[in-house]
Amino acid sequence: MSMTSTNDDVVALAQRLLACPSITPATGAVFDELESMLVPLGFTVDRFTAGKAPDGPVENLLAWRTTGAGPHFAFAGHLDVVPPGAGWNSDPFSPDIRGDLLYGRGAVDMKGAIAAFVAALADLPDDLPGTISLIITGDEEGPATYGTLALMERMATRALRPDLCLVGEPTSSHRLGDVMKIGRRGSVNMWISVAGSQGHVAYPHLADNPIPALVRILTAVEAEILDEGTEWFQPSNIEITDIEVGNPAHNVIPGKATARISIRFNDRHSGASLIDRITALAAPEGGTVEARISGESFLTAPGILSDIVGASIRDVTGVEAELSTTGGTSDARFLSRLCPVVEFGLNNATMHKLDEAVAVQDLRDLQRIYAQIVDRALRLS
Amino acid sequence: MSMTSTNDDVVALAQRLLACPSITPATGAVFDELESMLVPLGFTVDRFTAGKAPDGPVENLLAWRTTGAGPHFAFAGHLDVVPPGAGWNSDPFSPDIRGDLLYGRGAVDMKGAIAAFVAALADLPDDLPGTISLIITGDEEGPATYGTLALMERMATRALRPDLCLVGEPTSSHRLGDVMKIGRRGSVNMWISVAGSQGHVAYPHLADNPIPALVRILTAVEAEILDEGTEWFQPSNIEITDIEVGNPAHNVIPGKATARISIRFNDRHSGASLIDRITALAAPEGGTVEARISGESFLTAPGILSDIVGASIRDVTGVEAELSTTGGTSDARFLSRLCPVVEFGLNNATMHKLDEAVAVQDLRDLQRIYAQIVDRALRLS
Repeated sequence: MSMTSTNDDVVALAQRLLACPSITPATGAVFDELESMLVPLGFTVDRFTAGKAPDGPVENLLAWRTTGAGPHFAFAGHLDVVPPGAGWNSDPFSPDIRGDLLYGRGAVDMKGAIAAFVAALADLPDDLPGTISLIITGDEEGPATYGTLALMERMATRALRPDLCLVGEPTSSHRLGDVMKIGRRGSVNMWISVAGSQGHVAYPHLADNPIPALVRILTAVEAEILDEGTEWFQPSNIEITDIEVGNPAHNVIPGKATARISIRFNDRHSGASLIDRITALAAPEGGTVEARISGESFLTAPGILSDIVGASIRDVTGVEAELSTTGGTSDARFLSRLCPVVEFGLNNATMHKLDEAVAVQDLRDLQRIYAQIVDRALRLS
Repeated sequence: MSMTSTNDDVVALAQRLLACPSITPATGAVFDELESMLVPLGFTVDRFTAGKAPDGPVENLLAWRTTGAGPHFAFAGHLDVVPPGAGWNSDPFSPDIRGDLLYGRGAVDMKGAIAAFVAALADLPDDLPGTISLIITGDEEGPATYGTLALMERMATRALRPDLCLVGEPTSSHRLGDVMKIGRRGSVNMWISVAGSQGHVAYPHLADNPIPALVRILTAVEAEILDEGTEWFQPSNIEITDIEVGNPAHNVIPGKATARISIRFNDRHSGASLIDRITALAAPEGGTVEARISGESFLTAPGILSDIVGASIRDVTGVEAELSTTGGTSDARFLSRLCPVVEFGLNNATMHKLDEAVAVQDLRDLQRIYAQIVDRALRLS
């Protein structure tokens, strides 16, 4: 196993990545930096772009190192960051240590974690057979159409299939190690439309107002209880997020009315099953449903992977990690098709905010936690 | 009483008025024509403009003739017309007789009726004491803010107060004389708003979605039965005409939702009583109501005036007029504050349409009906 003195300083690695402006979609320099860190560690690096407008092209990096037969462990993450916004106390792309904190856009989401991936690998004992890979996209904060999904296709063509995967999203909530995510809810948007017949308010018998039927459908939607929650998930939730009629004329009965709903759902449902369910509520009132599934739910049932992550957190920090499935969606929803996936990373308090910052000590602790995780994973038989 | 040979030819009078383009608001020439018809008949003509932008200025004409002590009978109407639109078979402002019909914008709504007012007065026996007035606005098809209302103020300053009033709107439906209107429904628009608290769809406990409360309010509004109709009115009706949330973001719970309703109501209600009623439905759900009353309902209970109009129609045409309160609003809603008001005029089949036209025979019959109405009204003691 190659070991270099420069590659095990997680703070220096994080600073190098943070110094590259990489507002989503990330390209070029930030990938050059990561490649220059991985090559000395013996990784094969495969960089490629995928997709075309409007959601592409997207730059991605796949790296792997095999040292004999053994388990395949993957780190996954992204080098793109959300726009910094105005009002920072220091240049968001000039990493700056003040007090105990390292400031910069992406410090916790998630260049800090990628630096910790590299530093952990530099620390790794060299007697562990198996495969380690890094699945790194430049588009996770954007449409994500040609990011992790394209990396998964690339891996398939190279017959690379991880046994376990850790996504370095910032899951810690109050202190490093308090939360890991073992699943995420799914998300689907639906548009419920009722067509009527336009007419004059003074002559309602000559028109067919679609709004009362839409109101009845929405009343049924509001009354719908999808579930009471499951062992690892909170209850699925429906929100009505918009209603649009678009009728500026006070004396006109409109001809169409549409409502939009957003459902965040747990592992009791699929996007398709929910579309069927809402369609069944809308149909008796003449309503039709269009839908777009943003992501299916996934759950990595507590087991080997969460045990390894939990033990490593405990050893380094003494903290007992909560196993959570809350929050939005992440690329873990894609990777969960390949193998068990857990998300674990830095404290998310400043993510997407002004003056995003990571505690220097958290970076060093995360490096040690990640190193223990890989070590344990590769020793599985 | 002055009598002129030219002023009793209702068709010629109608052609003179139709030849003046007077798209709402009407000004100038069409009033000059009417004035030149009334002065030879001994009328005092008071022309004035009222109001300022955006709803004014508006040109109006008040005319009156008193010949001794007796009842005061008023004709009311408007010289403005709706825009002709494209596609006429003849110039909408070049009156054209083809077959039995006289074509032109305003033929039935309502220059034909105003011509019949004048011709009827020219026919009137000269031994009838009393007062006859004409209340003619240039803005009935528009905002109507400075039309009939301004004329009523002008009359008040001249101590002119009619005992009976006929509005010459085209009320006939299938044949001349089949319908007179003895009342109109009122109209009020209301905006029902619910304020919530914006937030992310993934964290509904941190937001307060206003849409479910608005849906509950609208369900209550839809269930509200205002009345079952009254002796002379159809049931009052509520239509939900618009819902606006204006939330383009799929993952955002909106902060506000607003619905607009339109109520057409009979003489069991007032605009104010309905605002109170809807406010009471909205308040328990945190909804607030803004309202704009377009017009109160009015009813001229069947009696002397409708008897006179009905008898005159019967004598000339043999038709038994139905007493109706259907349709939209008209300036009669204002005039009803002064005295009993009935609306009666030409066949409305082509009003506001391309190739608006009146049957020449209808014009001659309407002249005779109006003449009988005035004659009977002035003979009341």
